[in-house]
Amino acid sequence: MFLRNFWYVAGWDGEIGRTPVARTICNENIVLYRRADRSLVALEDSCPHRLLPLSQGYVEGDRLVCGYHGLEFDGDGACVHMPNQQSIHPEACVQAYPVVEKDRFVWVWIGDKEKADEALVPEIPHASEAGWVFDGGTYDVKCGYELLVDNLMDLSHETYVHPSSIGQLEITESLPQTRSDDESVTVERWMENIVPPPFWANNLKSKEVCDRWQICTFTLPSNVMIDVGVALAGTGAQQGDRSKGVTGIVVNCMTPETETTCRYYWGMVRNFDIDDNGLTQNIKDAQAKVFYEDLEVVEGQQANMLRHPERKLLNFNIDAGGVRARRLIDRALAAAAE
Amino acid sequence: MFLRNFWYVAGWDGEIGRTPVARTICNENIVLYRRADRSLVALEDSCPHRLLPLSQGYVEGDRLVCGYHGLEFDGDGACVHMPNQQSIHPEACVQAYPVVEKDRFVWVWIGDKEKADEALVPEIPHASEAGWVFDGGTYDVKCGYELLVDNLMDLSHETYVHPSSIGQLEITESLPQTRSDDESVTVERWMENIVPPPFWANNLKSKEVCDRWQICTFTLPSNVMIDVGVALAGTGAQQGDRSKGVTGIVVNCMTPETETTCRYYWGMVRNFDIDDNGLTQNIKDAQAKVFYEDLEVVEGQQANMLRHPERKLLNFNIDAGGVRARRLIDRALAAAAE
Amino acid sequence: MFLRNFWYVAGWDGEIGRTPVARTICNENIVLYRRADRSLVALEDSCPHRLLPLSQGYVEGDRLVCGYHGLEFDGDGACVHMPNQQSIHPEACVQAYPVVEKDRFVWVWIGDKEKADEALVPEIPHASEAGWVFDGGTYDVKCGYELLVDNLMDLSHETYVHPSSIGQLEITESLPQTRSDDESVTVERWMENIVPPPFWANNLKSKEVCDRWQICTFTLPSNVMIDVGVALAGTGAQQGDRSKGVTGIVVNCMTPETETTCRYYWGMVRNFDIDDNGLTQNIKDAQAKVFYEDLEVVEGQQANMLRHPERKLLNFNIDAGGVRARRLIDRALAAAAE
Repeated sequence: MFLRNFWYVAGWDGEIGRTPVARTICNENIVLYRRADRSLVALEDSCPHRLLPLSQGYVEGDRLVCGYHGLEFDGDGACVHMPNQQSIHPEACVQAYPVVEKDRFVWVWIGDKEKADEALVPEIPHASEAGWVFDGGTYDVKCGYELLVDNLMDLSHETYVHPSSIGQLEITESLPQTRSDDESVTVERWMENIVPPPFWANNLKSKEVCDRWQICTFTLPSNVMIDVGVALAGTGAQQGDRSKGVTGIVVNCMTPETETTCRYYWGMVRNFDIDDNGLTQNIKDAQAKVFYEDLEVVEGQQANMLRHPERKLLNFNIDAGGVRARRLIDRALAAAAE
Repeated sequence: MFLRNFWYVAGWDGEIGRTPVARTICNENIVLYRRADRSLVALEDSCPHRLLPLSQGYVEGDRLVCGYHGLEFDGDGACVHMPNQQSIHPEACVQAYPVVEKDRFVWVWIGDKEKADEALVPEIPHASEAGWVFDGGTYDVKCGYELLVDNLMDLSHETYVHPSSIGQLEITESLPQTRSDDESVTVERWMENIVPPPFWANNLKSKEVCDRWQICTFTLPSNVMIDVGVALAGTGAQQGDRSKGVTGIVVNCMTPETETTCRYYWGMVRNFDIDDNGLTQNIKDAQAKVFYEDLEVVEGQQANMLRHPERKLLNFNIDAGGVRARRLIDRALAAAAE
Repeated sequence: MFLRNFWYVAGWDGEIGRTPVARTICNENIVLYRRADRSLVALEDSCPHRLLPLSQGYVEGDRLVCGYHGLEFDGDGACVHMPNQQSIHPEACVQAYPVVEKDRFVWVWIGDKEKADEALVPEIPHASEAGWVFDGGTYDVKCGYELLVDNLMDLSHETYVHPSSIGQLEITESLPQTRSDDESVTVERWMENIVPPPFWANNLKSKEVCDRWQICTFTLPSNVMIDVGVALAGTGAQQGDRSKGVTGIVVNCMTPETETTCRYYWGMVRNFDIDDNGLTQNIKDAQAKVFYEDLEVVEGQQANMLRHPERKLLNFNIDAGGVRARRLIDRALAAAAE
């Protein structure tokens, strides 16, 4: 079961162009492309005639042409040309999905079309603000998206899963605060007077003692934004003054494909050295390495759960964020089922 | 469900020799080999003793020897030697399949043995006639054979699937005639006064305006012969005088393996430059390329249909040939079920 | 269904060390490692917290640390440290398996823990005796272990499966004697006055006529020890005097993984040229080649049986050993089910 009536990431802005691209989102097969004016189209990925995936066709002008018999569809999914047919068969149309581009992502609406509201597109904080830069990557992951939500809402795992990069013992030692409302869950952790790990020391351009924060926010359906950073110790970051620090948002959008697979879009929005493309690439490479370590964990969990469906997850203190996030998901699913 | 009491292609003549070869035909596992005198044998591919596939054994004289314990079977499937056993176990025999060689193919009879009649072997037109030459290749295809029948009975797809080789817009523009009787379906298309595509211009050794024809004939269980060619425009080809043209038969025999896979034997019989082995190879290479494009289409359809079994094919004008072919298949299946 | 309350081979002694190793035995997922003092630990391979396989973690001191959140387990499966938790959750423990090291193998007890008795570990004859040496290898095999038991209890297959190495026609020609009791089945074959095959001629350092023996003994749950050798003809080997011969034990321990896969541990214990490491390696290489030929046979059988579950094995004279071994297995399964 998937949460409907939400916007899901279908790709990075640069991934969708004039060549049709296939995506599976919440078990729906979708083809995406851009019109000549770069506006986006998302259609059901199946020609109504002989069921060839339309993603095996090509784009001509603003239309998607089926690769089998040349049926042409416009961006609304209507068949507008049928070679060798005098009249167009009324059933020969495909479902069109609301699709928007925002904050470097292409978003597709899964649910009732009339409820699609661009104002509901999840916010990637600062992603489109001047003075900030945003880049990242993608992984196809063989697990249900919920396991990645758990992972991101409990960063105490960093000490064990990422010991050589971002993990440090202080993460495990400092208890986070968890709070939630009807739409989001936040886990906030402050580590005071710590030696910054190499990544942050480099970016702060200082090895002095720091305060470090990790503020993870889950919002429905499946997104986790993590406000991270360090500031020189005692300069008031926790009280709101980050002027003596560097900060970024670790972006995590998990788009469900099937019950046991998802497509994981990750990246970082930052406000330091934003014109340093080498740094942008370095951060992306480092994130790719870190998230690959997570991928091995969550795929290991999923494989175990598939082998032993009778086994249940146990919840400890550290899982509070994930537990509340899953509770939000379950409530939304239950509400949708009514 | 498969059509029984038909001959199916089990291989090219040169594929079956003194080394046992395994084939799956209509879900039956069969092993083929030749006796010392080159005559053919087709047996159930399973030793009755410990169930090793007999295709993992070897041929000695006229017998197939099991690779596990040396049981020997003759071409009728009788066990004629059992090392270390004093008497031969009465159950130790395997089913033998009627098998014949004709028109460069090895054909196996699937159905009631007593109904096997060599006169019923489908005809590959001209394949064994003097003045003609026949060669081709094979693809294992991940789709039910019916999707390939559809494909071959509607050549309007050539414009879109094979634009760089045999496709030309005139194919889509000229409506074909469809006719059928109890045993066959024919789709006949004539394109008059057209510029011949490169393949035909080369073989006609002329770039003059031509009449081009494509006459597709489906016969049960799963074969489509396509009479193709061009003649100088207005020289009476449509009335039967092909003396100013070149012609060939595109051979398509689709042998069902399972409900969703088949083995596709394709080739061309031609009556021009028949001693030019380089041309024979060139045609084979070109056909391999063209049919590989079809393979991507039909496998795309099949994958979509497996993901969404609720989706149904729509039939347009252009599908008339395939629709009638499937009707023949369905009638034959229904008759067999009575 | 698997035989419980038996010791199964989980690995060669050198395979299990300070890095956790995952094994599936009788459908149970198990992780093995050694403590600092080299003593062995076998635990359920699943962290009770978030179900990450513990084999994805690491060993620290005597403890296994989960690779996700750092939970630490001792060799009894008790959770002895939980970062960030004040009290240890009572459910946070894993099953520990009795595990012993004997005769170069690591053995795990599958069944009721209180019944685990080291005295019940199957004996590998001579493996730990002075004057003998034992080495071998492992194959993962896509078949139920029973097919390998059949294979090893009827060496008449050597003539057909291993014609280029250990097979010789005399094996098929000499009928073996089969005897059994409640715990074992033995198939004994003597070939008198034969020319020894190359392997034995080399090791006997003589090409003279020999007596050759193969004495296969199956014991529950799934082990077959084969006493093999040759002695100069008529020197009394069959009466017990092997002083004019060379001898070895072909060791075969098949550990069930699932109903249709197993892990096959094979090797040879010998008492000739025991310090010749080159010979040890040569024998291992030769066995690897021979057992790979068997692997193709048993996997071919299993695939055929999965395609055609209605097909039943036939039993001939030569199968007497395997038939009785399976009868022992079936009786033990029936007794366990009571």
